[in-house]
Parts: sequence; C-alpha cells; structure tokens
Amino acid sequence: MTATPAPEASKPPSSRRVRTLAAIHAAAERQFLEYGFDGVSMDHLAELAGITKQTVYSHVGSKEALFLEVVDRMTGGAGDALADIVPQPAAETAPEIFLTRFAEEQLYIVTTPRLMKLRRLVIGEMKRFPALGAMLYRRGPARSIARLTEALTGYAADGRLKVDDPQAAASHLNWLIMGEVVNQAMLLGDGSIPDAASKQAHARECVRIFMAAFGPENR
Amino acid sequence: MTATPAPEASKPPSSRRVRTLAAIHAAAERQFLEYGFDGVSMDHLAELAGITKQTVYSHVGSKEALFLEVVDRMTGGAGDALADIVPQPAAETAPEIFLTRFAEEQLYIVTTPRLMKLRRLVIGEMKRFPALGAMLYRRGPARSIARLTEALTGYAADGRLKVDDPQAAASHLNWLIMGEVVNQAMLLGDGSIPDAASKQAHARECVRIFMAAFGPENR
Repeated sequence: MTATPAPEASKPPSSRRVRTLAAIHAAAERQFLEYGFDGVSMDHLAELAGITKQTVYSHVGSKEALFLEVVDRMTGGAGDALADIVPQPAAETAPEIFLTRFAEEQLYIVTTPRLMKLRRLVIGEMKRFPALGAMLYRRGPARSIARLTEALTGYAADGRLKVDDPQAAASHLNWLIMGEVVNQAMLLGDGSIPDAASKQAHARECVRIFMAAFGPENR
Repeated sequence: MTATPAPEASKPPSSRRVRTLAAIHAAAERQFLEYGFDGVSMDHLAELAGITKQTVYSHVGSKEALFLEVVDRMTGGAGDALADIVPQPAAETAPEIFLTRFAEEQLYIVTTPRLMKLRRLVIGEMKRFPALGAMLYRRGPARSIARLTEALTGYAADGRLKVDDPQAAASHLNWLIMGEVVNQAMLLGDGSIPDAASKQAHARECVRIFMAAFGPENR
C-alpha cells in the first residue's frame, strides 16, 4: 500500500507475520465484499482469522487501512494476472492477435463476481473514501489503458495501425471491451456477467470495430 | 412508479397534491444524493418540504418507495430530455449526423454531477435494493440502446449502414460513447467529468470509429 503504510512496514517480514497478514486479508476480503465497510466487525474478523483483535490492529493499523489494502491487493492482483497472461506483444505479433487476446483475458479476469462486488463497494463508498476509487481506477482501467497505449504506440510506429493519439485510442478500445459488461454488472448484478463464449464473441467484435477504425487501410 | 404504487395513486390528482409531491421529491432528491439512503431522516425531509412527517408518509408510503420514486424520476427525466432534444432521425438525416447529435446530447444530459451521484448511490445500494439498479438500467442505458437500435435498423434497411445485429451494434456505440466518461466519474469523482468541448470531441471520434466499422463502405 502506497498511501498509508501499515504501522509495522519498517520491520522485516517474518514468515509468521506473512501468514498472519494472509489470514487477515483473506477474512477481510470475504467480510468487506459481503457486508460492506460499516457491516464489518473487527472482532468477528479477528475470530475468522483465528487471532486476537489486538493482533489484527497491530498488523493492519485500522479498519480504514485494511479496507484500502484489500482494494489495492484485489485490483493489483487482477492487473498482475493480465500482465502475466498477456505480456506486451512480440515484434511479429499482428495487432488483431494481440488485441483479441488482451480483450478476452481482460474480460475473463476482471468481469468476475468477486471484482464486480468490489467495484460496487468502492463506488458506493466514494463519498467517504474517494482515494479508494482513485486507487481502483489507477490499478484497474488506467493500467490496462497504459498497457494498450504502449502496444498501440509500437504498432503505429511500424505502420501496422493508424493511430494519431495512442492513449485516446487505447481508452476507446478499453471501454468498448469493458463498458457494456461492467456497467450491466454494476446495475443488473452478477447474474448479468456473460459466459465465456459470449465474452469471447464480444472481444472479437470489439477488436473488429477497433481495427476498422484504426487499421492500416483506413482514413 | 411501476413496481410500488404510492398509496394514494388511485385518488384523483389535485393541484395541492401535485405541489406537495413536488416539494417532497425536490427535498428527497437533494437529501438522498447528499446523505445516501441511511443518512436521510424523514423528519428532516418533512421540515425541508415544509410539511409534517405524517403528510410525507401519506403521500409517498415509505422511505423505500420515495427512494425508488426519486431514482425513477431522475433517470426517466434524463431519458425524456434526450428523446425530446434528439428525436428518431428523419428519412433524410445521414447516420453520422444523427449519431453525432445523439452522442453529444447524451453526454451533456447524462454525465452531470447530479446523475453521476445518483448512479453511485444506486450502485452502492445494489445489495439492499437490486430493483433500483434494474430500474436505472432500464430507464437509462437500455432506453438509449433501444433508441439507437431502432435508428440503426432503419439505416441498415436502406443500406446506409452495414449492421447485421442492430442491438449489438447499438450497445457497442452506447458504451463507446459513455464507458470512459461514466466510469471515470464513478471512480474519480465528478471533477473528472469532461467539459463541453471535450465531450463534443469525444462524441465525434466515437461516431467516426462506429462509422468506420459499420458504414456502407466497410466489410
């Protein structure tokens, strides 16, 4: 966590400390997603993690800091997974191949009930914790858009795409891919999240639209 | 309100009743957007509307019903405004003209602090009031997508667009227009809402992308 370091951040990590933190974070994720910020009792959370409330506080500082940490880890983890599975394109990878993989994996990794619950929770707490929304944006959409921008810049440099403003084009593509699925999930619930085959078809159509507008034959 | 009729819905409306309801709704909109569902006191709301709490309840039934009514009126009002300002296209209106007007006006009307606050509130209350999200979706995005679907169907029929699945194409266009702006507002706050010139430039680029993918010269 960048903004609010945990009180023991300066101490060297021990395997016991790592295990305790892992137990706290696992319990906190479940509890916050299920009951929201106000609904979580630090007593009950300590019980679930199998430790005392005092130990919870000595490891995480406060309920607010723990909430930030949970959001940071969940959104950061999704971004890390996407970067591992779809690294930046190799020189020989055609743009439609890279973009289709990126779109498919982004949909698989991000539009899950767990991350959609987190997103609703963060949006609902924007008034009280605006830093949470900024963190989710930075670790989520902004990171995806930055990775797409880098790829589009490369493709524009060697003429495989016609893109004047790679960041703007990356943002258009990102929201073409994510807008419908994420916003339906926000308002219609997790039951609206499409199945794998529908996500794949959606990803392909989004890349077709993008290539029609930014492919080398256009303009 | 469709789902939960107000208790006095069967009585003929009187001008006094209309004025009282208007005062309640105006106070309720401000209070819910500012303090959220739990933060609104019906006592304080009655005071703001200049009536007794008993009168508030006799007009709206319950705090829950009033909350639904506020969401319904706000989202319905935005959709009505868009339909008034940008009616379905006349036969001679070129698709890029209609779609650009639609996109510009939709951005102007929907991406306001007032409606973005409402959207955050509804998303934050999805667990408790899932019907609110469904109502906002139906009155908001679904209505826009339905109107775009109708227009695209007409343009496909006379060959001015190449669209196999008008509803899918309409949804892509809707989220291309709204995805970036709405999601930034959700997570970064109302300060991220672009100014009028930026909205216009965004609308035009979205329609350019759409026309590249669905215009008559493509595929």
